[in-house]
Amino acid sequence: MTTSTPALAVTQANGSFETISLERRDLRDDDILIDIKFAGICHSDIHTVRQEWGDITFPITPGHEIAGIVAAVGDGVTKYKVGDRVGVGCMVDSCGECENCKNDHEQFCTKPAVFTYNSLNYDGERAQGGYSQQIVVTERFACRIPDSLELDVAAPLLCAGITTYSPLKRWGARPGTKVGIVGVGGLGHLGVRIASAMGAQVYGISRSMAKAEDSEKLGAAGHIASSDAGAFKAHARSFDIILNTVSADLPMNDYMRLLKPFGVMVNVGLPSGGYELSPRSFGGNTAMAGSMIGGIAETQEMLDFCAEHGIGATIEKIAAADVDAAYERVVAGDVRYRVVIDTATIGANA
Amino acid sequence: MTTSTPALAVTQANGSFETISLERRDLRDDDILIDIKFAGICHSDIHTVRQEWGDITFPITPGHEIAGIVAAVGDGVTKYKVGDRVGVGCMVDSCGECENCKNDHEQFCTKPAVFTYNSLNYDGERAQGGYSQQIVVTERFACRIPDSLELDVAAPLLCAGITTYSPLKRWGARPGTKVGIVGVGGLGHLGVRIASAMGAQVYGISRSMAKAEDSEKLGAAGHIASSDAGAFKAHARSFDIILNTVSADLPMNDYMRLLKPFGVMVNVGLPSGGYELSPRSFGGNTAMAGSMIGGIAETQEMLDFCAEHGIGATIEKIAAADVDAAYERVVAGDVRYRVVIDTATIGANA
Repeated sequence: MTTSTPALAVTQANGSFETISLERRDLRDDDILIDIKFAGICHSDIHTVRQEWGDITFPITPGHEIAGIVAAVGDGVTKYKVGDRVGVGCMVDSCGECENCKNDHEQFCTKPAVFTYNSLNYDGERAQGGYSQQIVVTERFACRIPDSLELDVAAPLLCAGITTYSPLKRWGARPGTKVGIVGVGGLGHLGVRIASAMGAQVYGISRSMAKAEDSEKLGAAGHIASSDAGAFKAHARSFDIILNTVSADLPMNDYMRLLKPFGVMVNVGLPSGGYELSPRSFGGNTAMAGSMIGGIAETQEMLDFCAEHGIGATIEKIAAADVDAAYERVVAGDVRYRVVIDTATIGANA
Repeated sequence: MTTSTPALAVTQANGSFETISLERRDLRDDDILIDIKFAGICHSDIHTVRQEWGDITFPITPGHEIAGIVAAVGDGVTKYKVGDRVGVGCMVDSCGECENCKNDHEQFCTKPAVFTYNSLNYDGERAQGGYSQQIVVTERFACRIPDSLELDVAAPLLCAGITTYSPLKRWGARPGTKVGIVGVGGLGHLGVRIASAMGAQVYGISRSMAKAEDSEKLGAAGHIASSDAGAFKAHARSFDIILNTVSADLPMNDYMRLLKPFGVMVNVGLPSGGYELSPRSFGGNTAMAGSMIGGIAETQEMLDFCAEHGIGATIEKIAAADVDAAYERVVAGDVRYRVVIDTATIGANA
């Protein structure tokens, strides 16, 4: 009573991707079946399958930047119909009843939330992700992709887009504010675009000036090299928000000094080390905060915002056979800026 | 062309307090002369005169929790008249023109602000504080003390009150929120009262349960001993705001785990060490922030709020001769909860 779908999976520790046949559950009343067209490669996928974030159960099909078309709907589905363009991000279920769910922060569901892969559904079945041709999710965890957004450039918005949109919105990026985006990569290039579209004056910040031109093309007013102490001094106490998208261990006190009074440094990366902070780094009523994706309602809001402002990810489209190589290139920082798998190629040579 | 006033001063490094005669400037157009009635002893006074925060210039008269009566006004004064009840806190001047001043955050004036002592006035004269019988300040830096607040219990509000009120207001203490106040001392006892008056469910947090009864008398729903790992576990992920009023080096990750999603830990103390924080401590979109006193408009708002809710400091009133002994008791944590100098006693035995 399930649907078989071609998928990419790593079947053992340190393994490469193989084409497998994945079973998707039959539609429950509130489920939709999605024909996946594109799946983005997020650095989290790599950390997870390589067990850099802890042991996992194999086989695993990662992928939580999913864009596709509704192919079938359960009897009770009201939100979508066959043919609708939809996306699925990092979550596929939550209890719906706890305080966090009721506040539209399903990512903090206390049950907890079911993540798109490396997570167990509430029925005990292992969730498998988007590097596949079909997926079944409850309609509540699918978002509508506006017609003006192509599915391939929309896919990365489901994780990278919401991860940057949510903190920029929460902390008030808007006209009159100055926003720094640390790391102009998969997350950061969307951070620059989104913050610019929100009306902020945006600066890309990375190790060198190599991405200065890219930053400006993405909408930034300028770029700052973190290796340039003079530039850090020139911009001291001037930023309202700094969104740090890199997972490297940064000298946080240096970045905190870039904040104006009441400014905030938001980290969405997950460095292996800790943060060592001087109490004086908080001297201007500044703050440091974390941010983890966003809820479903906010994800829809982000997609609508991106459509309105013509924001999609800058992507390199690859075939299924190239995923292992793409992982190496992502780790090497050699991607401008997001790799998206054309899922039609899964199993093509199998 | 100055006014002489009896004052307490430390005249040399490691010295005790002596009675001196301090010169206060003649009134400028926008100045008021205040007959100081009470001056609170803040732990900052002690850190400063003992040069624990850096070298200072002697002689120094500390004191930035000042309550008194307007005794004379400059020709251009419009806000106050002789006989008005007023307070002066940590600042006595700012440029009035920078972005921070215009936003009512004079404490972050870029010129910078003139602090009440251990600071130079813009005319180059050294500012001297409130352990004296009179002070001259521009009317802009005096706040009105509502009639329902006694001057002695109002004095500590000018620093300890605003230091706790401002972050509680900024971060949203209100009905339906749960607030922890770390350290039930000079700052913390007002934090408990103010957060309770804002409608929050408040818990005092200190090393042991010794102050549990006090916490509850101040309005708290309960008290948590930081030495009790079980209590920390029972309250995990439940606080919206934790206001840390102590300057000791705390295990910050343990406190961060008390925060619910989107919760904030605000530090108003200044520990000698740094904060070592795990990235996972920010996993629930939590934040850590600093907070430094508050602007003048907010200080007035705080005084009005305290008057409305019948909040004054719990004080021990002392004579000038007992200031040195009181310093020892403050350092030992042996004060319930704020020492206030009756300035009429300055020079009484001189």
